[in-house]
Amino acid sequence: MNGPAPFADRLAALVEERRSQVCLGLDPDPAELASPSAGQEPARGSPAAAAAIAVAAHCRGLIEAAGPACVAVKPQLACFERLGAPGWEALAATVEAAHGAGLLVIADGKRGDVPHTAAAYAQALFGSVATPFGEVRGLDADAATTNPLLGGDALEPLVAAAQEAGAGLFALVRTSNPGAADLFDLPVGEGSLSDRLASLVAERAPRLAGASGLSGMGAVVGATKPEHLGRLRELMPDSILLLPGVGAQGGRASDLTAAFGKHPASALVAASRSLAGASDPGEAAERLRAEIWDVSGA
Amino acid sequence: MNGPAPFADRLAALVEERRSQVCLGLDPDPAELASPSAGQEPARGSPAAAAAIAVAAHCRGLIEAAGPACVAVKPQLACFERLGAPGWEALAATVEAAHGAGLLVIADGKRGDVPHTAAAYAQALFGSVATPFGEVRGLDADAATTNPLLGGDALEPLVAAAQEAGAGLFALVRTSNPGAADLFDLPVGEGSLSDRLASLVAERAPRLAGASGLSGMGAVVGATKPEHLGRLRELMPDSILLLPGVGAQGGRASDLTAAFGKHPASALVAASRSLAGASDPGEAAERLRAEIWDVSGA
Repeated sequence: MNGPAPFADRLAALVEERRSQVCLGLDPDPAELASPSAGQEPARGSPAAAAAIAVAAHCRGLIEAAGPACVAVKPQLACFERLGAPGWEALAATVEAAHGAGLLVIADGKRGDVPHTAAAYAQALFGSVATPFGEVRGLDADAATTNPLLGGDALEPLVAAAQEAGAGLFALVRTSNPGAADLFDLPVGEGSLSDRLASLVAERAPRLAGASGLSGMGAVVGATKPEHLGRLRELMPDSILLLPGVGAQGGRASDLTAAFGKHPASALVAASRSLAGASDPGEAAERLRAEIWDVSGA
Repeated sequence: MNGPAPFADRLAALVEERRSQVCLGLDPDPAELASPSAGQEPARGSPAAAAAIAVAAHCRGLIEAAGPACVAVKPQLACFERLGAPGWEALAATVEAAHGAGLLVIADGKRGDVPHTAAAYAQALFGSVATPFGEVRGLDADAATTNPLLGGDALEPLVAAAQEAGAGLFALVRTSNPGAADLFDLPVGEGSLSDRLASLVAERAPRLAGASGLSGMGAVVGATKPEHLGRLRELMPDSILLLPGVGAQGGRASDLTAAFGKHPASALVAASRSLAGASDPGEAAERLRAEIWDVSGA
């Protein structure tokens, strides 16, 4: 057993070292980037290439400013994809910058597909693919979000690849948007669809468990509906919960106590626009770090 | 009203012209590409760049061979993404080749996210994004698959963008994998989770309806469980159904009659491995075309 350490253990060590459970969301909007100014070297190449360079620089800047108060970054794949191939290059550069700053990378693409295709996503996210021209490595993400609607067999290739790579996986169990109630809150049997999704997660938790007892088979649970947190924590006692929705979407850090289990690394709080949009992202991240550390009871 | 014609109308015209409802699935596996042989020009650049060039050539070859018997192609985004930025270039080249062959492009990425992010996916798939360096166009897909788990508000930006671009949208309603039963078949109210998803689709159908009465607000319904087809067709009378799972996954064309509604373009049959793996993909596609045309009752 000489593979990489499980995601849960790597995260646990980092959380204790930095006394932080903050995950820096990276949702770069090229429309909001500064226009090229007269003093700067003119952008070369296509608009997409120029915008991608600016996006990568923006993310690098945010990582430098806010990174020290965080343990992970969560690049939103959609924001890079809309710049095409250059956007994917900016994503790879962002992963590298985050790793350079000692941060774990949670690729937020909410991928999910039938098993044959899910295996290809696993290669793209934290594996590699064999080609006649040599092995091609994927993104080298430390973890990824996944949409579990297709069922257990569709999760399987992602879980297996995560286990081999020492990666984590966060399945959507209850998202942070208002419309999440349409389906996640539907009554199913004696619980809700969310509860059923939580069971899918809990069944697979032992496969990605670390020495700490925490499992990298985690779940996305929106911070905007704190009334769900206690129940979902009970259904997934060992899973790391990824909590988006604090800040711009209305979730408050002080409402998140129930999400934390027996370990300070049992939940991560993702904040994007509230950090990127702050006049001083470093200070905003440090304030959020201290607040969450308090709330977690660590 | 001078926008592009709705996807449903463009598809309807093509189906009638080609007497075909076949959608060519493109799931290129770089591991299965021919090794570079001695007579060929050696591949330049990284393994990823060389593999991406080979993948694009493979897809172009399949489009040339099987395209004339088809009305659409369905590139599986995972298969391109695993080659990183060069893979995205191969995807863009494949979209261009398909359009050049008169085929519609259904980008199969099963994307879905909270509204703010879903809007970014819409830009990536069939829109564009403003940047300080100029407008950057997305993939220019004619339609895309989407995972509706996040609810109605998360579908909204995709529906709105599809409406503006004259694009189509296929929401997952019942997938073709064995594990699909875990969640899609769960009893919810008086029906199943699939029925509930079908309602989400049907409610939005008028927004993407064409002059033919068909709607580009469509649904993915696996061909492997034909017992669901009749019920789901009833729940979504105007929606175009995209039926994957014929061939390698075990679905049979002869079982698909119930999927077809009042118009020959009311369902598309996607086949990937059974065409790409045939000794003569052109002949295999033509055989499938004739079989489905028969089954559709057109």
